[in-house]
Amino acid sequence: MTHDNLPAPGAPDIDIARAAVMAPIVPLAETKFDIPAKALVPYGHFKAKLGFDYIQSLSNKPSGKLVLVTAVTPTPAGEGKTTTSVGLTDGLNRIGLKTMVCLREPSLGPVFGMKGGAAGGGRAQVIPMEDINLHFNGDFHAITSAHALISAMLDNHLQWGNALDIDPRRISWRRAIDMNDRALRNITIGMGGPTEGVVREDGFDITVASEIMAIFCLATNLKDLQARIGDIIIAKTRKKAPVTVRDLGADGAVTVLLKDAFQPNLVQTIEQNMAFIHGGPFANIAHGCNSVVATQAALKLADVVVTEAGFGADLGAEKFLNIKCRQTGLRPDALVLVCTVRAMKMQGGVKKTKLGKENVDAVRDGCVNLQRHIQNMKTFGLTPVVALNHFVHDTNAEIEEVRKACDAENVEMVISRHWAEGGAGAEDLARAVQARLDAPKTDLKLTYKDSDSLTEKVQKVAKKIYRATDIAVSKEAAAAFKSIEKMGFGHLPICIAKTQASFSTDPTQLGATCDHIVEVRDATLNAGAGFVVAICGTILRMPGLPRHPAALDIGLDDDGQIIGLA
Amino acid sequence: MTHDNLPAPGAPDIDIARAAVMAPIVPLAETKFDIPAKALVPYGHFKAKLGFDYIQSLSNKPSGKLVLVTAVTPTPAGEGKTTTSVGLTDGLNRIGLKTMVCLREPSLGPVFGMKGGAAGGGRAQVIPMEDINLHFNGDFHAITSAHALISAMLDNHLQWGNALDIDPRRISWRRAIDMNDRALRNITIGMGGPTEGVVREDGFDITVASEIMAIFCLATNLKDLQARIGDIIIAKTRKKAPVTVRDLGADGAVTVLLKDAFQPNLVQTIEQNMAFIHGGPFANIAHGCNSVVATQAALKLADVVVTEAGFGADLGAEKFLNIKCRQTGLRPDALVLVCTVRAMKMQGGVKKTKLGKENVDAVRDGCVNLQRHIQNMKTFGLTPVVALNHFVHDTNAEIEEVRKACDAENVEMVISRHWAEGGAGAEDLARAVQARLDAPKTDLKLTYKDSDSLTEKVQKVAKKIYRATDIAVSKEAAAAFKSIEKMGFGHLPICIAKTQASFSTDPTQLGATCDHIVEVRDATLNAGAGFVVAICGTILRMPGLPRHPAALDIGLDDDGQIIGLA
Repeated sequence: MTHDNLPAPGAPDIDIARAAVMAPIVPLAETKFDIPAKALVPYGHFKAKLGFDYIQSLSNKPSGKLVLVTAVTPTPAGEGKTTTSVGLTDGLNRIGLKTMVCLREPSLGPVFGMKGGAAGGGRAQVIPMEDINLHFNGDFHAITSAHALISAMLDNHLQWGNALDIDPRRISWRRAIDMNDRALRNITIGMGGPTEGVVREDGFDITVASEIMAIFCLATNLKDLQARIGDIIIAKTRKKAPVTVRDLGADGAVTVLLKDAFQPNLVQTIEQNMAFIHGGPFANIAHGCNSVVATQAALKLADVVVTEAGFGADLGAEKFLNIKCRQTGLRPDALVLVCTVRAMKMQGGVKKTKLGKENVDAVRDGCVNLQRHIQNMKTFGLTPVVALNHFVHDTNAEIEEVRKACDAENVEMVISRHWAEGGAGAEDLARAVQARLDAPKTDLKLTYKDSDSLTEKVQKVAKKIYRATDIAVSKEAAAAFKSIEKMGFGHLPICIAKTQASFSTDPTQLGATCDHIVEVRDATLNAGAGFVVAICGTILRMPGLPRHPAALDIGLDDDGQIIGLA
Repeated sequence: MTHDNLPAPGAPDIDIARAAVMAPIVPLAETKFDIPAKALVPYGHFKAKLGFDYIQSLSNKPSGKLVLVTAVTPTPAGEGKTTTSVGLTDGLNRIGLKTMVCLREPSLGPVFGMKGGAAGGGRAQVIPMEDINLHFNGDFHAITSAHALISAMLDNHLQWGNALDIDPRRISWRRAIDMNDRALRNITIGMGGPTEGVVREDGFDITVASEIMAIFCLATNLKDLQARIGDIIIAKTRKKAPVTVRDLGADGAVTVLLKDAFQPNLVQTIEQNMAFIHGGPFANIAHGCNSVVATQAALKLADVVVTEAGFGADLGAEKFLNIKCRQTGLRPDALVLVCTVRAMKMQGGVKKTKLGKENVDAVRDGCVNLQRHIQNMKTFGLTPVVALNHFVHDTNAEIEEVRKACDAENVEMVISRHWAEGGAGAEDLARAVQARLDAPKTDLKLTYKDSDSLTEKVQKVAKKIYRATDIAVSKEAAAAFKSIEKMGFGHLPICIAKTQASFSTDPTQLGATCDHIVEVRDATLNAGAGFVVAICGTILRMPGLPRHPAALDIGLDDDGQIIGLA
């Protein structure tokens, strides 16, 4: 696979994506993984869903090895987890390992807002880029509909006599929409008199923050999906007993709405390697990884599966390990920690506008962040390979500082040039990962036990991963923990919702801040997803659009081609 | 094509649909209409979208003939327009005419509410029934997203300084969701302080009531689609000047969201004849027909195209002719008026619970409704064929009354047994329609001229079609008409939003009520769709769920098959 036909590195991602030669997905899946055509549900010529029956037929096959890609603390400079995951996949295929990548689906909110799409970048992309960034096989719309059906049935239940005795002041089920729309955060519904519903406070979260999204990504099959949906607690009665989606009678219809979406989406990288892109929960109030069904199916198809977890390793990898691996038995066989010179410079105190200039001292200072993440990953029994995601302006002296920091932690650092060179630029990284995969397997050490109290669980993550002195549990949070434990959910893992910009709960604390206190403001039970969210700091469940949203620049050109999609 | 494999008539529609042998859509489209595989975008194996490039390549081909299926005044007894359209299509194919049907897509609201799905019934169905009734290729979700993006950008504009000087009290753009949810009809948004948006009153309509849905079904190509979206008036400034989607800068991104959905969906009938199912606007506040792109593409592919219009002929056919035909130049070559003995009985005053018993007198009394619709259609220069959609309990004496009523109007009545017998049961109807198609073509006479004032237009429809004595225009409506004419939109056709249950604005007035007054309560301009809505009576833009919504009975069985979908 050459890149002769592609625009030079630095061209807009959409131009590179569009110039790439795509293989029709059905024959490609057959060539790569012997997937028969009838196992695939095509969505156009270059996307397909993989049928459940076929996935189930693979259950006796041996599983491949799993590589988790995580990163240093994210900064506006970008660290490139998705790009690295894609490039590494292409690199592993180049060195002869049959490898597949599993990624999250993009949300329409950021596509039209500020962040843009999420299909990789440069010459390390999954394609068709436009389709992946817009509506992608309808999965998020199905989740939004499923969420909306529960909302409609809940308010309809109140309207027709409220037989379940739901306390309208204690409804925890908010609404969801896949759009950045701050004006929907806090609303009043049901106004206009007795025929128009029951008046109550409500609000919309973005779809990726829906508990259905988290369930969608943790359920192992359709029955498990329906059981978890039934378990969702949507409200309390006037006697403060929990009311579930099952009580409402909505779990069957909601599962029907999700049935097709729940089959993982198969696409390809620019180098015609296979990718599953499926599900995409938030990485703060949820666990931030693609669906379990995609990852498990990929492990049956490929020898190596590369997957990523959201935000930095303190949030994404911690949850991948303590929640997803705990619930499913999945175990990473290798771990890649993505780092950039620019991110280290920012962690070292350099402003975003000054990143263009060499600053070796700042890189050195910022590397404490990288080192902290390396140390954290070692607490799980995992030795990361550090992937230095190379940018054209990185200087040798700066790169050397990152290498020294890795040497000090006794981990390997590999420069990866996938953004500019595609898989060829990631071959060194691929070989380093291969070495880790060939090394003797170590046991995964989770941060806390199921039997720890919820407070102890938060404490252990705060102390071992965030390096906090202690936690401060507010009255509300303490009461919530107590109530959740009393209801019989104390054994669940915890999902800490905090800023992704710092190890602490203060986003301005860069580097490897320690001696801080993690304030636990509140806690909520996601009984369907199977975790307790400990809320530390202000968490936005519905982003707003910026002053100049990306939507203003998105449109069709005279040939009907999409422009402005980044 | 035999029905040997199908359950007996009377079995649940979903069981019949599932027992039908479907042909893979790509080879079927090639066999039937020489559509090359590359012109199709498959969505699974039995659904596909027909690509624009291919549609455009057909533009120089001669057009087939168009059959419009409409009906008597709808009653809860059901008249079976969709079923008749499908059965007639199968019947026409049986007698040797290469025929295709164009239908509207179902909304999720009724599927989970009361009405159920909308893919025909008995042995006259379009399939795959589950896919058509759930998410169908994502079209309605794309429209909901497109609508939501305008909403988000509008409120975001207010948030960031309101450069367009939009008056938050004069925002006419409501929100949309594809769900029955009465509690969202009247809401307050933007609460919670300065970072959470601008507080204002708002509300959700069901997606089929969105102006985008109407535009989607009237636009002739992508450029027209974007131009019409740009033309939508969403608000007024503090100086009362109109603000459009184009002013907001959202027309490009909204069109991008609709690009794929805008390609018509190809499926098949139980007898493996081709169907387009595309778009589905309300038939009161909008024009109630499937997309123009689907109908126009079908006319290039087939010798005969059967299509339907919503509600009774006074609403659906009137709008099909006065709005859709006026805007596009489409002309029906034949018209089928669907009638049932049960509906005539109800028009004759029989309660729904008593419909099982023979009641010849009531049928005779009710037939005035049928006769009025026949007369109305003749004012357009169209002589209908009356299709008596046969029910098993209809008696010969009752049927004779319908025949006599048709004889008196000098139109042909044909008994059609497509529900029980599929296309074979509709062959007589097909031959009658063929005779109309072979008859000399008459000119279409529209009810009013573009140059008539808006008041005159409503008056002409009220007098000629509803047989009202006159109209009574409220102060609000008069002011709205004046303002719309002043803005330069007086030339647009009018879309009368009134009850579908009566010729009058009073739903309890059955039969062929006359001497009534049509009260025009208000009027709104749909500048993008290109019509002015005259609101006569209470119009529900957002249905509610019933006490026992259909969703309660929908679920998956142990084999993962959908149950309860009606």
